[in-house]
Amino acid sequence: MTGDSTVRIGLLGCGNVGAALVQLVADNGDAVAARTGLRLEVTRVAVGDVTRPRPVDLAPGVLTGDASGVVCDPDIDLVVEVMGGIEPARTLILTALEAGKPVVTANKELLATHGAELFDAAVKSGVDLLFEAAVCGAIPLMRPLRESLAGDRINRVIGIVNGTTNFILTRMTEGGESFAEGLAEAQALGYAERDPTADVEGFDAAAKAAIIASVAFGIDVRVGDVHREGITGITTDDIAMAARLGYVVKLLALADSVAGPGGDQVSVRVHPAMVPVAHPLAAVREAYNAVFVQGEAAGELMFYGRGAGGRPTASAVLGDVVDAAANLRQGTSAGVAGLAAARLRPMDELASQYYLSLDVADRPGVLEQVAAAFARHEVSIVQVLQTGMGGEARLVLVTHIARERAMQATLADLRGLESVDRVGSLLRVVGPE
Amino acid sequence: MTGDSTVRIGLLGCGNVGAALVQLVADNGDAVAARTGLRLEVTRVAVGDVTRPRPVDLAPGVLTGDASGVVCDPDIDLVVEVMGGIEPARTLILTALEAGKPVVTANKELLATHGAELFDAAVKSGVDLLFEAAVCGAIPLMRPLRESLAGDRINRVIGIVNGTTNFILTRMTEGGESFAEGLAEAQALGYAERDPTADVEGFDAAAKAAIIASVAFGIDVRVGDVHREGITGITTDDIAMAARLGYVVKLLALADSVAGPGGDQVSVRVHPAMVPVAHPLAAVREAYNAVFVQGEAAGELMFYGRGAGGRPTASAVLGDVVDAAANLRQGTSAGVAGLAAARLRPMDELASQYYLSLDVADRPGVLEQVAAAFARHEVSIVQVLQTGMGGEARLVLVTHIARERAMQATLADLRGLESVDRVGSLLRVVGPE
Repeated sequence: MTGDSTVRIGLLGCGNVGAALVQLVADNGDAVAARTGLRLEVTRVAVGDVTRPRPVDLAPGVLTGDASGVVCDPDIDLVVEVMGGIEPARTLILTALEAGKPVVTANKELLATHGAELFDAAVKSGVDLLFEAAVCGAIPLMRPLRESLAGDRINRVIGIVNGTTNFILTRMTEGGESFAEGLAEAQALGYAERDPTADVEGFDAAAKAAIIASVAFGIDVRVGDVHREGITGITTDDIAMAARLGYVVKLLALADSVAGPGGDQVSVRVHPAMVPVAHPLAAVREAYNAVFVQGEAAGELMFYGRGAGGRPTASAVLGDVVDAAANLRQGTSAGVAGLAAARLRPMDELASQYYLSLDVADRPGVLEQVAAAFARHEVSIVQVLQTGMGGEARLVLVTHIARERAMQATLADLRGLESVDRVGSLLRVVGPE
Repeated sequence: MTGDSTVRIGLLGCGNVGAALVQLVADNGDAVAARTGLRLEVTRVAVGDVTRPRPVDLAPGVLTGDASGVVCDPDIDLVVEVMGGIEPARTLILTALEAGKPVVTANKELLATHGAELFDAAVKSGVDLLFEAAVCGAIPLMRPLRESLAGDRINRVIGIVNGTTNFILTRMTEGGESFAEGLAEAQALGYAERDPTADVEGFDAAAKAAIIASVAFGIDVRVGDVHREGITGITTDDIAMAARLGYVVKLLALADSVAGPGGDQVSVRVHPAMVPVAHPLAAVREAYNAVFVQGEAAGELMFYGRGAGGRPTASAVLGDVVDAAANLRQGTSAGVAGLAAARLRPMDELASQYYLSLDVADRPGVLEQVAAAFARHEVSIVQVLQTGMGGEARLVLVTHIARERAMQATLADLRGLESVDRVGSLLRVVGPE
């Protein structure tokens, strides 16, 4: 760092987010300098293909194909990684941290698989590793979890963290579209990839859930630890039935801290769920994200905004850059702490209310057989609705709070019933607790 | 500050918030120490009446009636002010800051009248002055505005910042209650004071609006600069008509940055408004608060939670205490910058859509006279509804975007019309912009 408070940024990657960041520094750099005394300069930009045209103006010599050279350049004070992927991003970030350079990253995939290693490297070097942009784009979430709630105990985090699936579910809810129609619309608008697996099967949400749980509870949770179900099985009937019962169907990322044998356990999962219409998450529409946080003392909080997009994500990156640059100038870091080992609660110990739809034969005695399967596993039923007739007959059941293990055993029994043609969606119900 | 990283807190005031803070430090102090290495100790507590029983355990000798002594005590590292009111809080905080002690305060009234003076004192001493709890209790708002959006440009902030009025309006909307009934219910539940003026006339919201505008735009806005209208004139008919038109009535605190002659101007105001039902603020019910922020790059963000209450407010105070204590240990501050002079846009230059209800005579030609009054001031009407008949006849009008000056001139003309019995509520409509 030079004496004149210029902070020289090495930018790794110049796609949507990187280009938006360069533009934002150009637009707002003077205002940042006036307020903080820090002059931000995007000094070097490493990209895969230096010949490709970029949508932003870069001085000659700024672009380079040598990412390692940028990280090791003694003229670079701070590294911003927006290239994505595991390698070479992981090695580059570790190299930067070991060299005592703060790092700001938007790399969700990397943090959800190698977070603990990166956090340790940052702690060891005493420099910042900030990553607000890695989860829910522009929404301030990491900083509030880490700083604003530093004196509180976080009990629960529930997020709508994937804009693509929230868009699809909104179309299904408000437009009566099928999943396939909602997906096609999302693809036409550029919200969904041609191969939508990462979004619709919940992989993207699971990575974010792992990062959120790590920060909220200070523990090492990886994407592989997250129980994951997507939304491809959700039908328009499920959505309509949810509405009739006073719920909206949302794909949620949930992280709970619960008392377990020998200490607190954490449950981290991604699955579609029934959210009561009066719950603040129910009003989160289209491609927006929102994260609901339950603090022991703070009570219910929610953070809402755009979870993706070049400019929103770049705004979050730049907020972190200003923070890290100020800390660098003061010779401090406000960054992450190391992560403790996670004590994960197995999914089959989850306690939840459940919604289940069953295609059944329309004849006397069927409800009795179905009810017997629930009773056998001590899952009690709070509500039953029958819809349709003849070959279209369907039972919809909502349970009291039951254990996942008991519910899954009930499902297995129901699948074996001759009078049950098809076991449909199993949706967990978000309770008021 | 002692070498063992114990941070000795001098607490000024021990009412709801102070007592909850003492309890929170007792409950979560170990967790904070494990995570941050900081041992928080509430060393001295100054109260008005040391003989009054307190709901928390305090070691003998901690309670004192001498607030000045606490602030000046060389054993006190950090001062928390939750006593409220202007004096002696102002003098005590200034004394602490001048002595180089960081201050955390929840004092909305003081910040909204003497904020610039306090900020200057903090800047001069190079210590933190943090006040997350002063606006919307537990909701992280000051930190996101100051830090997360540090690289962005904030265009607009719209908040539901008073829980009492939001509760009353929710009862009016969902329960069909009158203002008086909603108020009585709020009083019975302890949400409203016996003298509800500060809430229902918008004084509380105006103080918060001044602080929000100061932090969002870095300018010196005082409560007296805020245009203010309360909700006492809102009728059940207004609420019903809003619903029919697709809106919910909310009391809003608004701060806009707009281009003006010679530079940006800021408009800061509190008034009831029509919020489109699909807007995220429309779903904020009961006594909850929420603040909607429009960032140039970040887009739309919203922060939601409990705006009041001892424990939520204490959670926010403690988050600030941990932050200030960490900075103190590192010999830095992340606190406020000084405030520039505000360039306020006069209220009559506001551009808005308006909703207006008029009690009128039920006879031919009335609409023509009313329309002529609008036309005379070039306010164009986008929608007219007539309800009731005879002595109960009412016209409801929604305008295109017009200037406040023109709208007020129109109102004056309407009041002079013999066919207009009463000019009812004028509500500004929150637009999609």
